[in-house]
Amino acid sequence: MNYEQLFGLIKKKRSFLCVGLDSDLDKLPLHLKSDPDGLFTFNKAIVDATFDYAVSYKPNLAFYEALGTSGWESLERIITYIRSKGEIFIIADAKRGDIGNTSARYAEAFFNRLDVDAVTLSPYMGYDTVSPFLEFKDKWTVLLALTSNKSANDFQYFQNVEGTRLFEKVLSESKNWGSLSQMMYVVGATRAEELQAVRQIIPDHFLLVPGVGAQGGSLEEVARYGMNSHCGLLVNSSRGILYASSADDFAEKTGEKAKEMQQEMERLLIENNLV
Amino acid sequence: MNYEQLFGLIKKKRSFLCVGLDSDLDKLPLHLKSDPDGLFTFNKAIVDATFDYAVSYKPNLAFYEALGTSGWESLERIITYIRSKGEIFIIADAKRGDIGNTSARYAEAFFNRLDVDAVTLSPYMGYDTVSPFLEFKDKWTVLLALTSNKSANDFQYFQNVEGTRLFEKVLSESKNWGSLSQMMYVVGATRAEELQAVRQIIPDHFLLVPGVGAQGGSLEEVARYGMNSHCGLLVNSSRGILYASSADDFAEKTGEKAKEMQQEMERLLIENNLV
Repeated sequence: MNYEQLFGLIKKKRSFLCVGLDSDLDKLPLHLKSDPDGLFTFNKAIVDATFDYAVSYKPNLAFYEALGTSGWESLERIITYIRSKGEIFIIADAKRGDIGNTSARYAEAFFNRLDVDAVTLSPYMGYDTVSPFLEFKDKWTVLLALTSNKSANDFQYFQNVEGTRLFEKVLSESKNWGSLSQMMYVVGATRAEELQAVRQIIPDHFLLVPGVGAQGGSLEEVARYGMNSHCGLLVNSSRGILYASSADDFAEKTGEKAKEMQQEMERLLIENNLV
Repeated sequence: MNYEQLFGLIKKKRSFLCVGLDSDLDKLPLHLKSDPDGLFTFNKAIVDATFDYAVSYKPNLAFYEALGTSGWESLERIITYIRSKGEIFIIADAKRGDIGNTSARYAEAFFNRLDVDAVTLSPYMGYDTVSPFLEFKDKWTVLLALTSNKSANDFQYFQNVEGTRLFEKVLSESKNWGSLSQMMYVVGATRAEELQAVRQIIPDHFLLVPGVGAQGGSLEEVARYGMNSHCGLLVNSSRGILYASSADDFAEKTGEKAKEMQQEMERLLIENNLV
């Protein structure tokens, strides 16, 4: 999916919601915990309940890898299932960051075997990490820039003599590594005021924005500082949506939450004359 | 395995060699490429040929993940096999870097399910990435500091007004996150002269040193600038050892290469009065 197609999907669904499938076995509804196929069953129900309101799904690989071989199998099945529902943008939240032939293997694993549209990568090792991913047409690298966790401060705000901070250096250095249909950035909603600094460096790129909801970020502020002429935002919600209820009605409650977010997003898209 | 035990193993084997199992299917000897169990068969032969000369193995996860479920299964089998050979230090080269409950899932995947001793992590997201790994006793985090690839320059040399470079900031910030039995650092042999700067910040920690051999680093120089009173080095060789021959005698040639490296390491350990 390219830049224009992603914007087209956002306009069609009047939403820029990304549903994070951080499906923690410990948090599954009770009746699914004992089900050997519980992880897939849970994710399938979440996808069914949210598909009309979301433009993207983002499985976080840790929750699948923790289960070993069966987790990996479960991941392959859920991705196939999501694809069967219709047009959608799938991000493997892997935060990989290797180089050369190793990185090429990751690119192959994610883009060929798993058939996702995008993969999150860590910038620490530089261009060598990203370059093998750029070989794939209309497939995206989502590079960590400014994350929403507390200890993002440890290194991301490290600054040089001109006052440039590491996350800004990452943006300016990498923005031309690939096209607008290949590079996207993680910028946390918990630092919405920093979105202005981010937009000065990369006005046109898409941003993947975690931290709305459970982590305290505001959708209104994210849109104010981060939205551009192609929306330019995928706002992720994981915990706030997934565990809306731990009872049998979990899927229904999740669907309601996703619908609420979609409606607020639709309002923001209208306000910005994008739909 | 703790800090003293790792040093004990080095003294016992008179070696600080880590064999990187970057087992690229495309590079396997011809007769194994068509074998459905080729990856495991290849790794098993490499382990058998090198076990007497190595203190550590480092499977790089990308090569297994690229094969999907079957690759993951192959990884589990090779780790079980290595363990069955005797005392050894196993590093999962995963370069993960997530946070909170996600990072906890990775720690669980690697330390409980896969039963490795150490995992490589990227520092970009700060302490939150490492903290769940520190919950495990005598299990190690190997944090990327200064890597051996060309584009390490992109961000790792980014420096503040005092001239501190990002990799130095990573070392000084993180060195007290865990004990000497929990924290180790990747410092590439291609930048041996930087080992002096590294040792000023972390004189006692173990370093995992890639880049000797195929990438051009010198074992002699690594020892000169990096060795400490507990050796403090695990020097990795992957391509230089694994693909010593692509014919049927590949395991024999690999064993010879590993033996050569062990003998040079023994000489360096003796010179430094460590054995």
